Amino acid sequence: MRVTCFSDMNCSIAGALEAIGDRWGFLLMRDLIIGLGRYDEFRASSGIPTQTLADRLRHLEESGLIERRRYKEHPPRDEYVLTRKGQDFWMVLTALREWGDRWHAHGGKAPPLALIDGKSGNPLRLALVDEREGSVVSRERARLKANRSADAQMKFRLETGARRRVQRSA
Amino acid sequence: MRVTCFSDMNCSIAGALEAIGDRWGFLLMRDLIIGLGRYDEFRASSGIPTQTLADRLRHLEESGLIERRRYKEHPPRDEYVLTRKGQDFWMVLTALREWGDRWHAHGGKAPPLALIDGKSGNPLRLALVDEREGSVVSRERARLKANRSADAQMKFRLETGARRRVQRSA
Repeated sequence: MRVTCFSDMNCSIAGALEAIGDRWGFLLMRDLIIGLGRYDEFRASSGIPTQTLADRLRHLEESGLIERRRYKEHPPRDEYVLTRKGQDFWMVLTALREWGDRWHAHGGKAPPLALIDGKSGNPLRLALVDEREGSVVSRERARLKANRSADAQMKFRLETGARRRVQRSA
Repeated sequence: MRVTCFSDMNCSIAGALEAIGDRWGFLLMRDLIIGLGRYDEFRASSGIPTQTLADRLRHLEESGLIERRRYKEHPPRDEYVLTRKGQDFWMVLTALREWGDRWHAHGGKAPPLALIDGKSGNPLRLALVDEREGSVVSRERARLKANRSADAQMKFRLETGARRRVQRSA
């Protein structure tokens, strides 16, 4: 059961965390999804120390989330942009923002940002949707199910968790 | 612009990351949402070292995500359960799992878990939904908008990001 690496856990959550690296990795992904891409921009956005920034960018590049692109030839200057895999991470950041908004993690009086439909101006939020019907489903109806590829440790988690939930509701 | 603390950033994402702590915090939240609650269960689930486990549980408790509950009197034994704030974090973990599933972060051939509707058995996924209409909206239509509570740093992020995106698509 000893874990040497988060990507060794037969778990998509642990693997995703390994790809991002740490909290600075999350903040860089936030900035990249907003559109930032240059060293001085990342530094100004979060106050990340230079060496940490270089380390985390290299890690995100190795994880296939970002790639370097030349934006100026004389003198040569590169910026970082998201790959498709990196772009696809937006939903995790949206979920973190929504949770932080609901629980006042922003430290102010009101959420600093809103996500809206560019056409209607209506507010947007994440919800569980039935893949076949396209309808919104409440979380209470959702069930986690082990696939055939679940290993013994994953089954242990699900079975123990289900037993504890029954005990607590008894 | 120097940042002393992630909860000082006028950003719900940074504040949410501060509440969780680190990657072990995320994994403990995963286990708690599945239903685990006892020391030996957390250790068996992730191989987390005992001292790290004690530290991270204390941090999650201080963040208001979990609370202790006595489940046995003789001898006295406690377990950890999620508060409402902690329960509400499920969507972040679902978004991480979905991303990890799509990009094979689980390290196996197929995703170990599926999220299904307990009644119909249909697969469920997260999607952006129009809060007023209840309809699913594609990400391409979504726009981030600064609220009045956005500080100068948040506006810098949004304006610089928007400018870069225009430059790249030119």
